[in-house]
Amino acid sequence: MHYHPPLKDISFVLFELFNAAQTLNRYPEFEEIDQDLMSQVIEEAGRFASEILLPTNAVGDREGCQFENGHVKTPSGFKQAYRQFQEAGWPALACDPAYGGQGLPHTLNTVLYEMLTGTNHAWSMFPGLLHGAYSSLYHYANDELKDIYLPKIVSGEWLATMCLTEPQAGSDLGLIRTKATPADNGHYILEGNKIFISGGEHDLTENIVHLVLARLPDAPPGSKGISLFLVPKFLPENGVPKVRNAVHCTGIEHKMGIHGSATCSIQFEQATGWLVGEPNKGLAAMFKMMNAARLLVGINGVGVSETVYQNALAYAKERIQMRAATRPENRHSEPADPIVMHPAIQRMLMSQKAYAEGGRMLAYYSALLLDGAEHHPDEQIKAHFESELALLTPIIKAMLTDQGFEAAGQAIQIFGGHGYIQETGIEQYLRDIKIAQIYEGTNEIQAIDLIMRKILADNGQRLFNLLDRIQETINTTTQPAFVNSVAALTQVCQHLRALIPAISDASRQSPDLPYQIAPEMLRLVGHAAMGWLWLKAATIADEQKEKDPAFYGSKIDTAQYYFDFILPETRQLIQVIDQYLIHSQQGHSTNYLDSLM
Amino acid sequence: MHYHPPLKDISFVLFELFNAAQTLNRYPEFEEIDQDLMSQVIEEAGRFASEILLPTNAVGDREGCQFENGHVKTPSGFKQAYRQFQEAGWPALACDPAYGGQGLPHTLNTVLYEMLTGTNHAWSMFPGLLHGAYSSLYHYANDELKDIYLPKIVSGEWLATMCLTEPQAGSDLGLIRTKATPADNGHYILEGNKIFISGGEHDLTENIVHLVLARLPDAPPGSKGISLFLVPKFLPENGVPKVRNAVHCTGIEHKMGIHGSATCSIQFEQATGWLVGEPNKGLAAMFKMMNAARLLVGINGVGVSETVYQNALAYAKERIQMRAATRPENRHSEPADPIVMHPAIQRMLMSQKAYAEGGRMLAYYSALLLDGAEHHPDEQIKAHFESELALLTPIIKAMLTDQGFEAAGQAIQIFGGHGYIQETGIEQYLRDIKIAQIYEGTNEIQAIDLIMRKILADNGQRLFNLLDRIQETINTTTQPAFVNSVAALTQVCQHLRALIPAISDASRQSPDLPYQIAPEMLRLVGHAAMGWLWLKAATIADEQKEKDPAFYGSKIDTAQYYFDFILPETRQLIQVIDQYLIHSQQGHSTNYLDSLM
Repeated sequence: MHYHPPLKDISFVLFELFNAAQTLNRYPEFEEIDQDLMSQVIEEAGRFASEILLPTNAVGDREGCQFENGHVKTPSGFKQAYRQFQEAGWPALACDPAYGGQGLPHTLNTVLYEMLTGTNHAWSMFPGLLHGAYSSLYHYANDELKDIYLPKIVSGEWLATMCLTEPQAGSDLGLIRTKATPADNGHYILEGNKIFISGGEHDLTENIVHLVLARLPDAPPGSKGISLFLVPKFLPENGVPKVRNAVHCTGIEHKMGIHGSATCSIQFEQATGWLVGEPNKGLAAMFKMMNAARLLVGINGVGVSETVYQNALAYAKERIQMRAATRPENRHSEPADPIVMHPAIQRMLMSQKAYAEGGRMLAYYSALLLDGAEHHPDEQIKAHFESELALLTPIIKAMLTDQGFEAAGQAIQIFGGHGYIQETGIEQYLRDIKIAQIYEGTNEIQAIDLIMRKILADNGQRLFNLLDRIQETINTTTQPAFVNSVAALTQVCQHLRALIPAISDASRQSPDLPYQIAPEMLRLVGHAAMGWLWLKAATIADEQKEKDPAFYGSKIDTAQYYFDFILPETRQLIQVIDQYLIHSQQGHSTNYLDSLM
Repeated sequence: MHYHPPLKDISFVLFELFNAAQTLNRYPEFEEIDQDLMSQVIEEAGRFASEILLPTNAVGDREGCQFENGHVKTPSGFKQAYRQFQEAGWPALACDPAYGGQGLPHTLNTVLYEMLTGTNHAWSMFPGLLHGAYSSLYHYANDELKDIYLPKIVSGEWLATMCLTEPQAGSDLGLIRTKATPADNGHYILEGNKIFISGGEHDLTENIVHLVLARLPDAPPGSKGISLFLVPKFLPENGVPKVRNAVHCTGIEHKMGIHGSATCSIQFEQATGWLVGEPNKGLAAMFKMMNAARLLVGINGVGVSETVYQNALAYAKERIQMRAATRPENRHSEPADPIVMHPAIQRMLMSQKAYAEGGRMLAYYSALLLDGAEHHPDEQIKAHFESELALLTPIIKAMLTDQGFEAAGQAIQIFGGHGYIQETGIEQYLRDIKIAQIYEGTNEIQAIDLIMRKILADNGQRLFNLLDRIQETINTTTQPAFVNSVAALTQVCQHLRALIPAISDASRQSPDLPYQIAPEMLRLVGHAAMGWLWLKAATIADEQKEKDPAFYGSKIDTAQYYFDFILPETRQLIQVIDQYLIHSQQGHSTNYLDSLM
């Protein structure tokens, strides 16, 4: 397995498509940002990912984390890679300089995580969780906690976890039972059991900072009675971990993939903790950092799509099997051709390419929104960015991880029988990426989040705003070559506009309806957004194509492939949604409880 | 993990939908067949699968096969299970009584393999390959070879392999290099290396019969120069394995799944073998048995869909998370509901159910064609059955394994984080079924087989015959409740009729075109066939529904679900095919070699 950091396409997306340097540079915090600086960071990240991290990926899968007597040993090379990562200052990349951070944009962190997850998904989860913890503490903890913990987290000296799941409470955090009882000195005593805690125990850092959802004694039931606590593995004194806290790892899971990531059961036995934010407002604090976390999960799908595409393409150029229907002159006497010449293989490769490049556009666009939502000086624009980001977040999380899963499956097909062999290295990507469809809210829950909280909750206003912007791009696209693509995208957008009031009306009689069509709506809005960015990308590529015909020509072809052969999925999506609406209008039940009993 | 043999649905499909007992009973060889006998065999098969085989599935995955000094040790319990399987006479089920077989229909063997693959895919490959070898020898070997080997294979005393793949020759068997040199006494000396040989070495039987593709010294190049040889592990004397032959296992693969199946590298070092059939006609002999083999791979998809559906459903009834939009009265005071009440979960379960039941109909229908093609007394009808089977075989192989893969992925989603944990047992199904999309001809190659050899080769005549039969069913479906389903199916069939001449014309200018649209055509024809059977099933269920409202009601709902929410995929398929046709008409290239370089 190899990985060439896709620097050219990253630059295209950031600097040609989104004008990222100038955009970010306008925010006071980023006044030192320019394209050179960004490119330098990205090149360094690419070097770390391809040279340091990739070599640890297969060994991490083979060895996995080992659990013994409450301790977790990470696979060979993980510690060394982490030390280099930390020494290079990568944990601090997007953190506040007040706590030792580099104060760089989330956009750069997103690029970094595309590369980390594309080269070692399991390893990337150790530092990946750091950002969620940082963000929760940064926004909600009091100054005392911040002063003690943030510098350590920002420097990467201490890693962090998010302790949410319990055996009976997965998607439904309202069912959490872990208890927190107030003690003297303003701290709390935590008791309970958490499961599926990524990085809950390991040997990478001297201390681990757990952020824990738990209930206060007088908490109301359900999700309104959950508070957030900080529980360190070692209680620090003057920045040095001292007394071992009563929080212990009782075991790690054997999983389908991400074997190098320690998925721990964590027991809190009268552990000492501190409240973060207000009592009973823990879920809100958690959801505040969800945008960033889900964006990072989504970028994982892009990272995987890119890596499996690169490797499948390289294999397809080498592997010679069967004569192609169309074969170059110089191969006429050969008994068989490289499989890249076979249309079946080309179609899978083009899909993977479209997933990687399309996902990248959508993810970076959202990362820029996140930076804008935090740093734009104008409160109104800030709010607009936040609103658009909220709309796109579930799409990025679900659609891009689904695409990563599909791309990995296609890569195995391209490798054929060899793809099914562990030593080849490609099947690991399918096993690893599967978890991204589940964690940080399953992709089914993302779809519900989109339709209920992001679309119907404001009568589609957020979505209509996005559709307006798409329409602006459509209106200014005049190249004759893109007429059909423009028509296809226009149709999707028009359908969406018409669907929202119809769904809204129908859901009054049929409360199940929006939940039923949620998966289709997510992909439909996703294609509108992705089609929009492909149209912009194709336009730019068309303008620039003489400068670099190979790169821009391939970009235009990939856009064309997307519009002609991927976007047609929307026909199916619209038809399914229409069917549900018809059933609802006719008063037919589409609740299948009886059929399933 | 549990498995309840789906006896009720199997009976429905065989006896109510296809009238299998009477159909088979009409063939002279099956005059003793009746519904009771068939049901008895099926019940026994279900007991073996659920009680003996299922308990070996997870342990087989965990332990895998072990290789040491040329020997392969199968996982704990595999040997005992195989002994019971053999003693019960299962290997002989569909074999000729002349060689000790039970002379029962392929249809029953198909039901058996649905259950075996649904409970232990890896184990099922050991006896599964026996049928291919039996069939090749039965049809092509001389009487001497048949008399020596067939009784041993039929009794299951000796297992068999199919040695096709070599490092440089996977999908393209024309590239095979293994050599066979004539020796004295009419035998041959084989030299070469094969890879990916399932069951190439193991400890289940005292002897192993390898069927090997190799080249004679004077063989023409490519696929027309390949012959088939029988190479036993031990050369038998009077039915007793004696001299060790020079065929050795040099290693086994570590794979994504089917760990319990030994995937061997096999070295032939001047091994003794015998020619099976005519020189240079080896591939034809191989393809003769491909229909049966690919049917068994397809049924694997059904077996997996059924098992993962059953387990996901059971979990969904138990697992309580979040309130459902529509909740029964008696749950109004509960904080959360079983996830089976959530539409997102219902949709995945209904898809899995539709895949399992729809796949079952299509596979059993084809198994009956296979029996008819072998046993119908009228040569013309026989040829018609064979022709229809040839059309459906690539669809069954590809579509049903794709559905099995999708169903397994959905099951993991339903289990959520727990689905990703090995101990839960569900993720093994995804890893195992992935190989079924690759072996016996990748699903991409199935699609090419369908469009090139089964559709365009006879100008669509086979397909039009099938469409005529679908039209007959449509014409006789009068229930008002099925009007929309009938309309949807009619539209798919009309599109197909119009597409064939258009594709045929276009492929003259654009030789790549049929290859490009092959995947869409496979699913489109597949949906026509599956929709046809769903329409028949719904009609019967509608007539019978008062006898068993729960079963038949659920059958009608599942049919409805298929037509409303799965069949709409055809909108996408047709749109993609249309796009390719338009590009072809306009003379635009859709060969992406340049974009991928």
